[in-house]
Amino acid sequence: MFNVVIVRYGEISVKSPKVRKRMEKALVENIRTKLELDKLSYLNIKKEKGRIFIYSSPEECIKIANSLSRVFGITSTSYAIEVDNDFNTIIDEVVKFARKILRENMSFAIRARRVKSYKITSKEIERVLGEKVLEEFKNKVKVNLERPDVTIYVEVREKHAYIFSNLIQGVGGLPYGVEGKVVSLISGGVDSAVASWLIMKRGCKIIPVYCNLEPYTTKEAIERAYNVLRWLRKWTPEKEFYAYIVPLGYAHSKIKNIDERMRCLICKCMMYKIAEKICLLEKAKGIVTGESIGQVASQTLDNLFILSRCIKFPIYRPVIALDKNEITELARKIGVYEIAGKAITTCLLTPKYPITHASEEHLEKIRKVVTNDLINELLQRSEKVTLTYNI
Amino acid sequence: MFNVVIVRYGEISVKSPKVRKRMEKALVENIRTKLELDKLSYLNIKKEKGRIFIYSSPEECIKIANSLSRVFGITSTSYAIEVDNDFNTIIDEVVKFARKILRENMSFAIRARRVKSYKITSKEIERVLGEKVLEEFKNKVKVNLERPDVTIYVEVREKHAYIFSNLIQGVGGLPYGVEGKVVSLISGGVDSAVASWLIMKRGCKIIPVYCNLEPYTTKEAIERAYNVLRWLRKWTPEKEFYAYIVPLGYAHSKIKNIDERMRCLICKCMMYKIAEKICLLEKAKGIVTGESIGQVASQTLDNLFILSRCIKFPIYRPVIALDKNEITELARKIGVYEIAGKAITTCLLTPKYPITHASEEHLEKIRKVVTNDLINELLQRSEKVTLTYNI
Repeated sequence: MFNVVIVRYGEISVKSPKVRKRMEKALVENIRTKLELDKLSYLNIKKEKGRIFIYSSPEECIKIANSLSRVFGITSTSYAIEVDNDFNTIIDEVVKFARKILRENMSFAIRARRVKSYKITSKEIERVLGEKVLEEFKNKVKVNLERPDVTIYVEVREKHAYIFSNLIQGVGGLPYGVEGKVVSLISGGVDSAVASWLIMKRGCKIIPVYCNLEPYTTKEAIERAYNVLRWLRKWTPEKEFYAYIVPLGYAHSKIKNIDERMRCLICKCMMYKIAEKICLLEKAKGIVTGESIGQVASQTLDNLFILSRCIKFPIYRPVIALDKNEITELARKIGVYEIAGKAITTCLLTPKYPITHASEEHLEKIRKVVTNDLINELLQRSEKVTLTYNI
Repeated sequence: MFNVVIVRYGEISVKSPKVRKRMEKALVENIRTKLELDKLSYLNIKKEKGRIFIYSSPEECIKIANSLSRVFGITSTSYAIEVDNDFNTIIDEVVKFARKILRENMSFAIRARRVKSYKITSKEIERVLGEKVLEEFKNKVKVNLERPDVTIYVEVREKHAYIFSNLIQGVGGLPYGVEGKVVSLISGGVDSAVASWLIMKRGCKIIPVYCNLEPYTTKEAIERAYNVLRWLRKWTPEKEFYAYIVPLGYAHSKIKNIDERMRCLICKCMMYKIAEKICLLEKAKGIVTGESIGQVASQTLDNLFILSRCIKFPIYRPVIALDKNEITELARKIGVYEIAGKAITTCLLTPKYPITHASEEHLEKIRKVVTNDLINELLQRSEKVTLTYNI
């Protein structure tokens, strides 16, 4: 019975006409790509004021509505029946629809919206349709406006009306890619996964970078990181998606005779510097990390202060001021906790007492150890890995 | 009847012994200051494993518990009755307490916790106390473990037991100041207020900086900013709290003959640069802003990229990847929406089409206009304003 998917978007509609037009275009493009990735077919995509409509078969409509609820920028979707907006047609179709989804003893509500030009008010539409449905069921169903078993939505627009009973929550935000590109440091843990997702939601395209600490890490840690990369890939409405895998363990093996308490500072500096190199290569406008003040020994304000100065590119830290609990809650909501939340050993190099209050002298020492040559070699040894999209 | 306030803290207790000790000490210090600011008197503060106890009079205990629920680092507080942990004493006191807070026909539950060394189990304590209370009321009250009208909590520790029926939610996080100092750019709007609060919650001491755009702003905008500063002051457990008021409008009046579309970039660059100067002056370790990608024309990824490079200090943006809705929700929760959420005119200089995609050439131009001399003059003309704490 369904022949269309209604796509709603929030934040884009408050932008200036010029920006809105650009973002709507990007959103439609992302929708096309997402549907192609999910191998979902459709007849046509139509843009109207504040809405996007996708026409397809009844079965595909349900799948499309669910698939698109995971596209950034979309606030909600519904699979619906599009009919002419002639009131008699609407009545017939709503009664037919009610016949399919209502059973005896169930309660229902009609919720109508209409464009101003339509001659009948929303209240009147609701009243008439409610009556007709009750008639059809010979009063064996009842109206319940507070907590109905089923809500039938009727949205009357310029030419057509839309009938549906589902409202699939999207994630909102801005369309992926409209803001430009950033490089995102992925550890495999929850913090960096959430940070990346949040920045993607704000319209940024990401180039994930995973620093592999082999031989100073575990198989499980590497596997977990790849799982996070695959999870990020699912959220990316692009035909191609790749990550950089940096053999950071190799660089560590070349750094000897240092004060081991400085190991974490040196490690982080190398990550920043390689991310900066990749920014230049990829024309990205900054680096994203999952750092959060005071969460672990290496993420003190003093350390972040010194480390930030190792590079010139801006560092964005979307979870900088969130508690572990808040980050975990977000991770559960977006479905990455099961993947990234496993407590496993990630680093075999961490000293017992890492430096927590880095100073200018430490910065000098770090700069001496983390040479440009080393970073260049690291970049050459890095791999660009294409991540395939698995439905 | 109450003689003590129980203070609980969460995140601190998972830190290493050394860090924990330092943070607990800071928390106790912040508690002392907060109580002094709120003019609340007490007899004694006691630190025990995982808890802080504050002894005072019954009326003061209630006020203290409420006051401390707004101290960063504290997860919850309760005003309670401390008694010896002898079981007969506990029974007598719980019955006496129930007498005061239960009425006929009400339902209640007993929730007990005990240290392992205590001879009676929690379940047994709950059972006996429940019976005794029922006896006392001749069964005219009833037990309801799911949704009781009143819950009586009994916490048995090494020497004492604590009886209470309230649990006041705190904000959690880390004790104010343990991470060091940051300079926070305050506009008077919601975003920067929330960003400052979030960073304070992660243990950072803030030095607020308000850039006054007079004569290119409105009285309401200045008033709103001062209200936000006063609100931040309420959350600061320090005897002194001051903000810098920077006459940014003066600097704008000196910048003429520029491409007006660059006005916002120049403005933001001046803010960053003056904040950096204040960082150096105050030994602060970074700058906090309420910037959020793509929210307004000036906060595009391109603009943030170029602007970040005007200074060397790191910029922390706690709301960088939050939607307006998410920021607003947070603002309501922490009570600043009523103050900062008013839609008013803040800037009379904003061009119709500000530059949204800043480039290297723009950076060159900005650097020519925003001279060191100008920033130094601006700093000299800035005022350090002490904000008094109003109960």
